[in-house]
Order: sequence, then C-alpha cells, then structure tokens
Amino acid sequence: MSEWSVQHVTIVGVGLLGGSAGLAIRRHWPEARIAGVGRRQASLEGALALGAIDEMHLAVATPASQTDLVLLCTPVRAFRKMLEEIAPVLPERAWVTDVGSTKADVVARAREVLGEEGRFVGSHPMAGSEKKGASFARADLYEGATCVLTPCEYTPPDVTEAAEAFWDALGMRCVRMDPGSHDRAVARVSHVPHVLATLLMLLPRDRELDLAATGFQGMTRLAEGDPEMWRDILLTNVHPVCDALNDLSAAIGTLRELIRSGDAEAIESLLLQGQRRKREHNGE
Amino acid sequence: MSEWSVQHVTIVGVGLLGGSAGLAIRRHWPEARIAGVGRRQASLEGALALGAIDEMHLAVATPASQTDLVLLCTPVRAFRKMLEEIAPVLPERAWVTDVGSTKADVVARAREVLGEEGRFVGSHPMAGSEKKGASFARADLYEGATCVLTPCEYTPPDVTEAAEAFWDALGMRCVRMDPGSHDRAVARVSHVPHVLATLLMLLPRDRELDLAATGFQGMTRLAEGDPEMWRDILLTNVHPVCDALNDLSAAIGTLRELIRSGDAEAIESLLLQGQRRKREHNGE
Repeated sequence: MSEWSVQHVTIVGVGLLGGSAGLAIRRHWPEARIAGVGRRQASLEGALALGAIDEMHLAVATPASQTDLVLLCTPVRAFRKMLEEIAPVLPERAWVTDVGSTKADVVARAREVLGEEGRFVGSHPMAGSEKKGASFARADLYEGATCVLTPCEYTPPDVTEAAEAFWDALGMRCVRMDPGSHDRAVARVSHVPHVLATLLMLLPRDRELDLAATGFQGMTRLAEGDPEMWRDILLTNVHPVCDALNDLSAAIGTLRELIRSGDAEAIESLLLQGQRRKREHNGE
Repeated sequence: MSEWSVQHVTIVGVGLLGGSAGLAIRRHWPEARIAGVGRRQASLEGALALGAIDEMHLAVATPASQTDLVLLCTPVRAFRKMLEEIAPVLPERAWVTDVGSTKADVVARAREVLGEEGRFVGSHPMAGSEKKGASFARADLYEGATCVLTPCEYTPPDVTEAAEAFWDALGMRCVRMDPGSHDRAVARVSHVPHVLATLLMLLPRDRELDLAATGFQGMTRLAEGDPEMWRDILLTNVHPVCDALNDLSAAIGTLRELIRSGDAEAIESLLLQGQRRKREHNGE
C-alpha cells in the first residue's frame, strides 16, 4: 500500500515490540516523527539512542494530542489507563491500535473508554522473541509474520483499513478474526506452550538438569519470556487458557494411564498421530 | 585414549544412531571392520551405501561370533532378544553396550541373559535428532555431547573402561551414574518434554494451527521423533515417567487455579522462577 503514509506516530512502551516498530516505521517512512512514551527515562533514552524514536515522553497526553496513530506496546493490562489518557486529546482523524497477544479484553476496554464509534482496532502482530527490551529491537522483527486484526461490527472501516495498510507496509500478512476466536486459538498455539516451557524448566530436581540436552533446551526456550508481559497475557485470557490447560491435563492423564498399563499399541498410535500432524503442519 | 583400538564391531540397528556410530567409528579407526545387523535389507543397503557399515546381516549370531564389540542401537525393547542371540556366540574378550535412552530395564535384561559376570555395560550417548534413519546419520553426531555409563557393582571394570574409552574416542564427555538415577533424571529432562511436544501438537483445534508461530514450532519439534523408539522408551521407564507426569499435572493444576483466581503476583513469581532457572542453566 505505497499510497498510505504516516507522519506522526506515538509508540507507548518502548521495549522489544515498541522499539522494533519504531525502527520499522523509520525504515518505511523516513520522514515520520516518532514519539516514544515510557515509564522509565532510561528505557526511553535507550530507544532514542537506537534511533527507534525521535522524542521521549513520560506521559502519553502530549504526543497523543498531535498524532496520526497511537501504537500501544506495553503489557496489555496497562492499556486501559493509556486509553483513558488518550481519549480526551486524540485528534479527530487519528486512530489507535496495539500489539497485545490477547484481544477480547483489549477490545472491550477500548469500547468502554473510547465508545463504540472509537477509532480503535485490535492488532496482534505475531512476532516477538523471548528477549526483552529495546536493545533487542530489530527493524525486520515484523517482516513475514502474520498480523491478526480483530475489528468488530462497530469498528470504523477506515480504521481497520489504515491498520491493515500499516502492518502490510511493515511486511506482515494480515488476517481478520473475531476477538474471541483469536483468543481461543492463541491460548492453544501460544499461551499454553509458553507456560509449559516454564513448568518444564521447573520440573527437574537437584542435579537432574545436568543431563539436559538440546531437546530440553528447545522445550524451555520460552521460559526466558518477560514475566510481566506474560502475566498480563494470562490474566486477560483466563477462560481460553484454563480450558486449554484442562484439555492438556486430561491428555496427560490419559497418556499416563496408557504408560502405566503398558498399552504399547495405543502409545505408539498417539505418538504417530502427533508426528503426522507435525509433518502435515510443516508441509512435509 | 589413543592406545585403545577396535578391529571388529557389530552394530545392531542401522538407523540414525547406529549409522552415525558406524561413520564415527570409521573416521576414528579406518581399519575397523564394521558389521551391520538390521531387520530390513533396504536399511542395511542404505547404511552400506553411506559407508556406515562394511557387511550386512539379517541376524546377529554370525557377526557377534567374531566381534570385539556389539553396539545395540535398536529400539530398547528389542534388546532382550538380541542379547539372547548374542550370549551363546560372543567371544571371551568381547563386550556389549547400547545407545538406549533408559537404563534400569536394559541393565536388568542384560543381567538376566548374560549373567552377573556378563560383559555388558549400559551406555546412553545423549545425542540424536528428531529425524529417523541412516540417511540422517552424521559422523559427528556424538561429538561434544554427554554419554552416561551405568556400570553396576558387578560389571567387569575392564568393560566399563573399554566403553568409556570408546565413547571418549568418539568425542563424548562420559559420566557414570546408577541406572535408576539416570532414568529418573531423563524422565524429567527428556521423556516428559518429548511427550509434551506430542500433546501440544494435538492441542489446537481445527484451523487454530494457522496461528502457530515460531514459539509453537519450537515447542513441537520433538513431536517428529520416531514413534516406535519413543514407545519403547516410555515402556521401559514407566515409574519415573509417570511420577514426572504426575508432578507436571499438579503444577498445571496449580497454575490454572492462580489464573482462574486472578492472582497476578503469584503468576508473575512463578514465571520469574522459571526465567531465573533458565538463565542460570544457560550460564547467563
């Protein structure tokens, strides 16, 4: 969407995702003015030094009052407060989106604060890393990954289109979903796998970790993720995550009984089913 | 151990682990004669073409009757039958080891078949891949990884020393453990993570897999593992695996309750604990 452009951007939260967005925006729209909003002066200075932002702000009201676009990149449970500060000052044609990993809660908060006619659409750019902080930011973090947009029937169509054009320009593949379906899907393909990495990391006793090899390293890589960000993800996706954890517990219980009873055929069949689905998914 | 050498080797099972052992043995002892034993002519021909073996056999008795060393590389539940065929023909100074991922069961089988004075020591070279078959074999598969040896008080010391020298020569770091401690440790750092990859692969419903990103790919990579090999691993490590699955289920239940009750502090603290242990383990 080369005709689409951006002049003033406000990025709230200048960590890995916010910092990478700043670098990507600068690469695609070198003339854009990027305001960074953060809680800590040090983080803002880091993002500035990196070239991810042009201005540093400890509060969102000033930059949001003269912006085309606000991008919320803090942990999701901080969004409500940010939206409350943005609402009174946002210019008429400006719009707001986010990079949060859960959508139903965020969409509901935005509706509460900005109203149904509010110029907000939820985005979940499915890119990231277990590393935290702007120092790991990369201009190409978003490139080639999927971005889920979750417009509702009341979302202004031009806001959804602008968000789509924005993520498209950053090299993402946009898909639209309703917030609930999105949250149920990511509970199973992202949130539960993530917490499992933590629980697996805590499973070995004493010196047992000495025998950990590459398989274990791979299964626990996500345990390095930012605890604050993931706490908020889990707490804004309670029912889908608990449902998925229930199903996983049940599957573990079934497998345990197959092992205990020595049911070789059923165990092999389960492993084969997983192998087949993995290969199909890999396109093999 | 450059003084240690090998002339006739018998590799039973010419898949990834057996084939890689053949390539590594040839690299270190170019004059060694390597006999391959397999169930299928096609696998044997593949290993021969690759240079992993010099001779093909559908039964173990002939090559085992004139060997210095038998290396068992089949799925572990096939070991007993192999040991029974080897026992009557094994030359007096020859010795037997294996590459199986569980040790208490294998050590007990070897004692039953070969007797306490039998020239067997259990090995678990902790190297591998989720790929199956000699076509993925590599001469350096074992290099730099840990090999656990599980001698018992009755194991002939020269057999343990020969096995240690053998794996040392292949570039492995040898450690000795008792079979039970080994099995309890690998249940937690290998077997449970492995089955979790399968269960996570089967958790998403319908089109939910469309949203799977790199985190999910990493958490399910092990689901590609060979179902037959892993079936045998689980069935020869029943109690440690079931214990570990029980502990994991309990941890999942606890986390689920924290999420359901919205206990932000306890959730963050758990995630932080996992992050800290991961970083310590990485040596960060």
